[in-house]
Amino acid sequence: MTASQTNLPVDARRIADIVRGLERITEPDHPYTRRAFTPLFLEGRAFLEERFSAAGLDTRIDAAGNLIGRRKGRKPALGTIMLGSHSDTVPEGGRFDGIAGVAAALEVARSLSDAGIELDHDLEIVDFLAEEVSIFGVSCVGSRGMAGVVPDGWLSRAHDELTLRQGIVKVGGDPSRLPSSKRSDVKAFLELHIEQGPVLEAERLDIGVVTAISGITRIEIIVEGQADHAGTTPMGRRRDALVAASRLVLEIEKLGFAHAAGEGHFTATVGEFEIEPNAANVVPSRARLLIDARAELRPQMDVFIAEVEALAARIAEEVGVTITPKVISDNHPTPGDPLVLATLEAACGRVGARHRLMASGAGHDTAWMGRITRSAMIFIPCRDGRSHAPEEWAENDDIALGAAVLLEAVLRLDGQLQEKT
Amino acid sequence: MTASQTNLPVDARRIADIVRGLERITEPDHPYTRRAFTPLFLEGRAFLEERFSAAGLDTRIDAAGNLIGRRKGRKPALGTIMLGSHSDTVPEGGRFDGIAGVAAALEVARSLSDAGIELDHDLEIVDFLAEEVSIFGVSCVGSRGMAGVVPDGWLSRAHDELTLRQGIVKVGGDPSRLPSSKRSDVKAFLELHIEQGPVLEAERLDIGVVTAISGITRIEIIVEGQADHAGTTPMGRRRDALVAASRLVLEIEKLGFAHAAGEGHFTATVGEFEIEPNAANVVPSRARLLIDARAELRPQMDVFIAEVEALAARIAEEVGVTITPKVISDNHPTPGDPLVLATLEAACGRVGARHRLMASGAGHDTAWMGRITRSAMIFIPCRDGRSHAPEEWAENDDIALGAAVLLEAVLRLDGQLQEKT
Repeated sequence: MTASQTNLPVDARRIADIVRGLERITEPDHPYTRRAFTPLFLEGRAFLEERFSAAGLDTRIDAAGNLIGRRKGRKPALGTIMLGSHSDTVPEGGRFDGIAGVAAALEVARSLSDAGIELDHDLEIVDFLAEEVSIFGVSCVGSRGMAGVVPDGWLSRAHDELTLRQGIVKVGGDPSRLPSSKRSDVKAFLELHIEQGPVLEAERLDIGVVTAISGITRIEIIVEGQADHAGTTPMGRRRDALVAASRLVLEIEKLGFAHAAGEGHFTATVGEFEIEPNAANVVPSRARLLIDARAELRPQMDVFIAEVEALAARIAEEVGVTITPKVISDNHPTPGDPLVLATLEAACGRVGARHRLMASGAGHDTAWMGRITRSAMIFIPCRDGRSHAPEEWAENDDIALGAAVLLEAVLRLDGQLQEKT
Repeated sequence: MTASQTNLPVDARRIADIVRGLERITEPDHPYTRRAFTPLFLEGRAFLEERFSAAGLDTRIDAAGNLIGRRKGRKPALGTIMLGSHSDTVPEGGRFDGIAGVAAALEVARSLSDAGIELDHDLEIVDFLAEEVSIFGVSCVGSRGMAGVVPDGWLSRAHDELTLRQGIVKVGGDPSRLPSSKRSDVKAFLELHIEQGPVLEAERLDIGVVTAISGITRIEIIVEGQADHAGTTPMGRRRDALVAASRLVLEIEKLGFAHAAGEGHFTATVGEFEIEPNAANVVPSRARLLIDARAELRPQMDVFIAEVEALAARIAEEVGVTITPKVISDNHPTPGDPLVLATLEAACGRVGARHRLMASGAGHDTAWMGRITRSAMIFIPCRDGRSHAPEEWAENDDIALGAAVLLEAVLRLDGQLQEKT
C-alpha cells in the first residue's frame, strides 16, 4: 500500500527474508501448507530458531510448545514485554497469516540491537504453537497453554494414533509442566497480523489498531416440517422446511446488517446449511442451519441471540413447522487493553502510519494472552481481504511499517510499565 | 371414506384378497418392498397370474414384460379396452400405489363374468412392468414399451451385472420384439390409482376424474458468489451464495402459489439444495438448487420457466452473484381423452360416487398409454395424502367404489367405441 519506507527504523529486507524463507517450507503440491505438529512445521521452526539465535536471542521451547527468543533487559524484575504470532498454516493457506507477525516481532528485536538500545524489560519474541485449527481439531494451543486455559481433555485428543500430549512433546514442549506454567511475568503483549478483511485496503490505511477481538457465538437451528410428494401436495398444504429455513437465512442477514450499522463490529453468517431428504420430488422435511455470529460488544450479541429466538418462533408459527435454535458455543469478546491501545495509536502518529480503530472479526492468540496481561493487536492491509488461501498477500513494506509501529510502542511501554512484579 | 357398499356390482372382498395377498409378498424387514425385477416381484406376479387365470382370463407376458389377462369379446375386430396399473413398489413403499388399480381392474373382469355380460371388445387387464423408478434408475418401462417409446440406450442400462434387457427377459418379456410391439388395437385405456395427495380426503369425495397428468419440468440453478471469512468480511461487502439462493427459494414458492391460484394444477418445489463450502466460518460461495415444477396446462409452465429466468437475473444483480438456471428435463402434460373423461363422469353419476375433476401431480403409466389410445384415470382417496411410505392407506370400500365406476365406464365405452380397426 505504501511506497518503500527507506527512513524506517526497521529493515524491511530482513522481514522479507523470514517470509520468503518460510514460504519455501510447504507441501510442494499444496502451497502454502505447514500445519502444526508435522515435519514441515518442525522444519519451519528450525529455520526460525536459527534466525532467532542469529539475532542474539536466547531461544527455548516452553511447556506449551511455543518457540520463544528472549532479549534480556536491564531490570529483569520489571517483567517481560512480549511480541509474537504464529508460523503454522491451515491446509492450502497463505504466506502471511501469523507469519507476518512473527517476522515483524523478530525485526523489532533486531532493530533494537542494531540501534544499541537496551530495554528495562526483558523482550520475548514468540511463535505460538498451533494457532490455526490443528490436526487435533483445536486451535490456539500454545497461547491457551501460556495463559493456563487448556480445556480438560484436550491433551488426550488423538489424530492418526498421535495424541495432542505426544504432539506437544514432539515439538519440544512438556505437557506435564502445563498446569504450573501459566505466565505471570508478562507485562504487555502485542501482535501484528494481516487484517484478513478488506477494510484497510479499501480505506487506503496502513494500520488498524484493534480495539477488541470479537466474541464468536454459534447457534444451530433445526427446522422440522413434513416430507410430502412434490407433485401431488398443493402449495397451500405444505410444511416445507426449506421455505422456513430460507426465511431464517434472510432474516438473520437482516439482523446482521442492523447490528453492523451499530457501534461495534458485528457479523452474522449462515455458513452451514443442509436439508433432508434432499430429493427432487419430495417437499423438504428437515433443515439444519449453523449461524456464526461475531460481536465486538457483548450486549449486541445478547440482543441478537434473543432476536434469533423470537424469529424462530415467529417463522415456525407462520410456516407451520417446528424450529429449534440452540446456542452451541458462546465466547465473549476480548477488549484490547486501554493503555496498550493508546500507546499503539501514539506510535502510529510518531511513525506516520495512517491508522483507524477497528475490531477483529477473527480469533487470534491475543484473545488468550489478554487473560494474563495487557494486550492488543495491530492489523496491516492485505489484498482483497483474502486469507486462508494461496492468493493471500500483504506488501512487505506494509509489514515493515507495522514493525516500526510495534518498535515505537515497545519503547514507550518499556518506559510506562515500571512497576515491579 | 364411504360406508360398506353392499349394493355395488363388484365384490369388495375379492379386491381385499388381491391387496392382502400382495401385502404378504414383501421384504420382511422393509415393508412394503416388492421392486420390479426382484424374486419377490416375480412371486407377486405368480400370485397375480394365478388370480387372473382363476378369473377365466387368458394370461401372457408381452414383449415389454407386462402381465396381461385377456377376456375375449364378441367382436374382436373392434379392438381392445384395457384396464390396469402396476404391482411393483418403491423401497419401503405402500400397499396401494399401483396395486389398488390392478385389483380394481381384475375385479371389473370378474364382475362382468359373474353378471354373464359379454362385451363387444376384448377386455385386457394389465400389470405394467416397473412403473416406479426401478433398480435400473428408470420408470414406466412396461407402459413405455407398450407405447413404443422406450428411449435409446435404456435396454443397456445395468445394475449388479444385470442389464434392463436381461431383466425384461427374466420377467418373461422379449426385448428383441420391442421395436415392433407398439399396440395399435387398444381403443381405450383406464387406470384407477390412489390420489397420493390430500384433496379427495379433505373434500370428502369418492373419486377424482383426472383431467390431465401434469408435465414435469426440472430446472437446476447454480449460484456462484464468493467465499469470504465469516468474521472479518463486513456484511455489506459479501457475495453470499446462500442469501441469493434463499431469495430464490422464496420467490419460486411465490410463483408456485400464483400459478396454483390459476386454472390448472400447478406445483413448484425446491427439493434439492446444497451449498459450498458448507463451513461454519466461511461465507457460502456456491449453491445448487433443483426445482421440480408440475403443470396441468403447458402455457403456465412456459410462463414459469421464463419467470424463473427473469428472477435469476434480478437476484443475481441485486446480490452481486452469478445465477445460472438450466432446464434439465421438460415433459409436457398428458390431457385425458375427452370422451373417456365424459364417460367416467357419467359413470360416477350412475354409481353414486361423489366426484370432482382434478389433475394428477404425479406421473403414471396412463401418461404413456395416452400416446397410443384414448386414456384417462380416476383417483380414489388415501389417508393424509401419504404415499411411497409404509403408512400409505386406502379404504377397501373406496377401491371397490372406484372399481364400480370403472365397470360402468367399460360398459359405456364398449357401446360407444364401435368403429372397426
